[in-house]
Amino acid sequence: MRTLEQLAVLTDSSFSGNKDTKIHSVADLKEASEGQISFVNNNKYLKHLETSNASAVIVTHEIAKSFKGNILINENPYMAVAHVIEILHAEPKPKAVIHKSASIDESAVVHESASIGPNVVIDEKVEIQAGVIVEAGCFIGKNSILKKGIHLYPNVTVYKDTIIGENTIVHAAATLGADGFGFAPTPEKQWFKILQIGNLIIGDDVEVGANTTIDRATLGSTKINNGVKLDNHIHIGHNVTIGEHTVMAAGTVVGGSTSIGKRCQIGGASALSGHIVIADDVILTGRSMVTNSVKLAGVYSSGIALDENKKWRKNAARFRKLDDLAKKVKNLEKKLNEK
Amino acid sequence: MRTLEQLAVLTDSSFSGNKDTKIHSVADLKEASEGQISFVNNNKYLKHLETSNASAVIVTHEIAKSFKGNILINENPYMAVAHVIEILHAEPKPKAVIHKSASIDESAVVHESASIGPNVVIDEKVEIQAGVIVEAGCFIGKNSILKKGIHLYPNVTVYKDTIIGENTIVHAAATLGADGFGFAPTPEKQWFKILQIGNLIIGDDVEVGANTTIDRATLGSTKINNGVKLDNHIHIGHNVTIGEHTVMAAGTVVGGSTSIGKRCQIGGASALSGHIVIADDVILTGRSMVTNSVKLAGVYSSGIALDENKKWRKNAARFRKLDDLAKKVKNLEKKLNEK
Amino acid sequence: MRTLEQLAVLTDSSFSGNKDTKIHSVADLKEASEGQISFVNNNKYLKHLETSNASAVIVTHEIAKSFKGNILINENPYMAVAHVIEILHAEPKPKAVIHKSASIDESAVVHESASIGPNVVIDEKVEIQAGVIVEAGCFIGKNSILKKGIHLYPNVTVYKDTIIGENTIVHAAATLGADGFGFAPTPEKQWFKILQIGNLIIGDDVEVGANTTIDRATLGSTKINNGVKLDNHIHIGHNVTIGEHTVMAAGTVVGGSTSIGKRCQIGGASALSGHIVIADDVILTGRSMVTNSVKLAGVYSSGIALDENKKWRKNAARFRKLDDLAKKVKNLEKKLNEK
Repeated sequence: MRTLEQLAVLTDSSFSGNKDTKIHSVADLKEASEGQISFVNNNKYLKHLETSNASAVIVTHEIAKSFKGNILINENPYMAVAHVIEILHAEPKPKAVIHKSASIDESAVVHESASIGPNVVIDEKVEIQAGVIVEAGCFIGKNSILKKGIHLYPNVTVYKDTIIGENTIVHAAATLGADGFGFAPTPEKQWFKILQIGNLIIGDDVEVGANTTIDRATLGSTKINNGVKLDNHIHIGHNVTIGEHTVMAAGTVVGGSTSIGKRCQIGGASALSGHIVIADDVILTGRSMVTNSVKLAGVYSSGIALDENKKWRKNAARFRKLDDLAKKVKNLEKKLNEK
Repeated sequence: MRTLEQLAVLTDSSFSGNKDTKIHSVADLKEASEGQISFVNNNKYLKHLETSNASAVIVTHEIAKSFKGNILINENPYMAVAHVIEILHAEPKPKAVIHKSASIDESAVVHESASIGPNVVIDEKVEIQAGVIVEAGCFIGKNSILKKGIHLYPNVTVYKDTIIGENTIVHAAATLGADGFGFAPTPEKQWFKILQIGNLIIGDDVEVGANTTIDRATLGSTKINNGVKLDNHIHIGHNVTIGEHTVMAAGTVVGGSTSIGKRCQIGGASALSGHIVIADDVILTGRSMVTNSVKLAGVYSSGIALDENKKWRKNAARFRKLDDLAKKVKNLEKKLNEK
Repeated sequence: MRTLEQLAVLTDSSFSGNKDTKIHSVADLKEASEGQISFVNNNKYLKHLETSNASAVIVTHEIAKSFKGNILINENPYMAVAHVIEILHAEPKPKAVIHKSASIDESAVVHESASIGPNVVIDEKVEIQAGVIVEAGCFIGKNSILKKGIHLYPNVTVYKDTIIGENTIVHAAATLGADGFGFAPTPEKQWFKILQIGNLIIGDDVEVGANTTIDRATLGSTKINNGVKLDNHIHIGHNVTIGEHTVMAAGTVVGGSTSIGKRCQIGGASALSGHIVIADDVILTGRSMVTNSVKLAGVYSSGIALDENKKWRKNAARFRKLDDLAKKVKNLEKKLNEK
């Protein structure tokens, strides 16, 4: 519980209204009730502002001009609300205990401030640093290093030799450091497995979504750099590099040996071929199909979006003869010029 | 083991042939042998009817007119076979025991008729109602409620505060209620995590496929309503709502805050952007790319389907100049009209 | 540690340079240092050959003509390096022990040479053959058979009745044999679950990627034949058959009852509809959308690849009127011919 004035100080905002208004939690504009603070980040929700039962609202200076009520004023309301949520809702860390059902190899080193949940398995020579939380059912393969403040949610699998940076968060059922998909074709048209002897290195402040997989390198390292945020159900192939502070939405697949720059924003359900290079500051809209390197920062897209099935069928059928159509047009131009 | 007559009564079908024919199990028309019943749901399998070794077949009235043999006659053979499979093949529920290796917090309430498998972890204040089955390795986060008759297959992770409705089935390695993908951009072009303090509410009779992920809400609730069926490898973002009896095939990705109507059928590998609204009774064919709201019931599609690589390359290259092509055609029309 | 000469003999290669050169490990051309061997598989990496610090390099006869140094010469350098990695880096198998925290039903049969990790659960009547490795947290459902030499990485879930062939590798958090997505529509527009009473049969020398899901059959068997390699995040629906030595890259979704031939190469993020047949030796490039059967071997593609967002928007808008455009062109041709 904080007052409006306290929240203003804590979030580096100004305020207007009753400074002693008591705020216990954060809620959506439409669902908020007394004691709750909400926010307007997007003009399309302005209509809900007048009718909201929130005791206070976080708004921009612009909106503040026309709204009477208890407000926190901040040029970045989304950032301010992120801070307010943290102030009002952050939970205490779990106690630093090692659950009795955990299996920890005697050569592993677990810091006394770490919390190790039920059924966690920690293999040979693993290093678990201060404040790390490893929830139930996680497996940490040998020689792996989990640096300070990491939080692994339940049922995460970390293969051997993986290094994870400070304060990184990994959600449930993610798989880190599994074998890359590497096979040599044999003369008999079969596939001979190439042992994947590289590893996976993840930086600080990274977030890895639930059921996401990041493969180890064939040789060398797959590298997820500081501040990268990966959503759920992402696949990162072997020997990929992702630059600092790049974000990637759910369901994206990145082929082996591809390199993605810094501060990129990759829309969900995108597919990037292997062995390509994406420059810094590239934005890909959702469902992008990327088969070649992208050398310049900018916004890129691909694909055919939804249409009525009947219309789509006709257009899609024409696409299959698009080259013919273009030739016809060229012919027509020629003919017309000759006349 | 049942007789043909008994199966007719139990499935509300009529029959023809020897009423005492003994049926012990169900099989495909091509693979069935004595004592087995099969079905014809699709005219393209009619050819296998005459040569099948099945002791009986479930057919429509239409097919029944021309086929001599032991038959169950039902206008919906697919539904009838579903019932027959249940009658002949349903397995007894596992015993209501709590495996000795399960870790159950003392503040959790587990109904005496529930079955809790090996290495299951049940956190503080969880409520497990009557007849619930939680298989090996599942994790149930604090304050979560698992209502009557739920079946969680092995290695499912349920985050805190999740509510799951009666008789819902969740397959292996699914993750329910993980953090939404929410970050506020900082002035330094980095991303500040927004704590995800909402939850996930799943209705009754829902099925969630293996390795599917459904995120909790940022604020408020992500809602999967009664009777929704989700296949494997689906991603449902934070604050999504899915209406009753909607089905969604494998590999589909739904962005945050999107709302999908009732009785929709979403084809596999589709991608729906965040913040859009899909009306009731919308059918999306497989691999749909949905970037805008769909306001009317109907069938919708998108994408470019497979072609020989050589042809596709030519057509795809033309697509990159489609706007030019359309302008050329407009010019040609103008010129021709001027002549 | 081996000498250059020894590696030549073991990999059936010739060599040139100092036969006693000592090699302890394999590394990328750019990262290699003394005591390491590298390889050139691709002409585009030739430029790194002269400057590499590798003590030896695996090359083709062609490259060998112009390069002076310690070389292993092999027409298939990729295969040779795969062998060298195995020779220098293969790890000893884990000891044949059953971890004390494993829960093994008394009716299960586990070969004395198998290795069963912590918290593994083995259900009734399971058969685990010689040399099998089951890592931590795996669940093996009743009646399943794991043949000789199989390796299951941590947190894999195997449903009942699954049969897995010799030397098959399954990566973490994969789900094998979960229910197919089968529901009969009811008159009330709801969905009635069809019990999935078939099973899953996986052949020898198969590899299944992390978080991949393969469903059991509704009736009969889903079949993954010998030598198939599946990458991460793949979904294989019920009753699918995949022919021998087919490889499939990450994020691909295969609908139910589809049959894929032998020696196919399926690019990543592809989507194959249900109930279709793909011939032997078909190559699909990445992100293929396959809605119909493919009857002939060959290379196939689909989709629209990335473009600048502004250009793409214009072209994509034109696509929605492509049928009209084609009609206009037809009209123009007609008019011009009439003149």
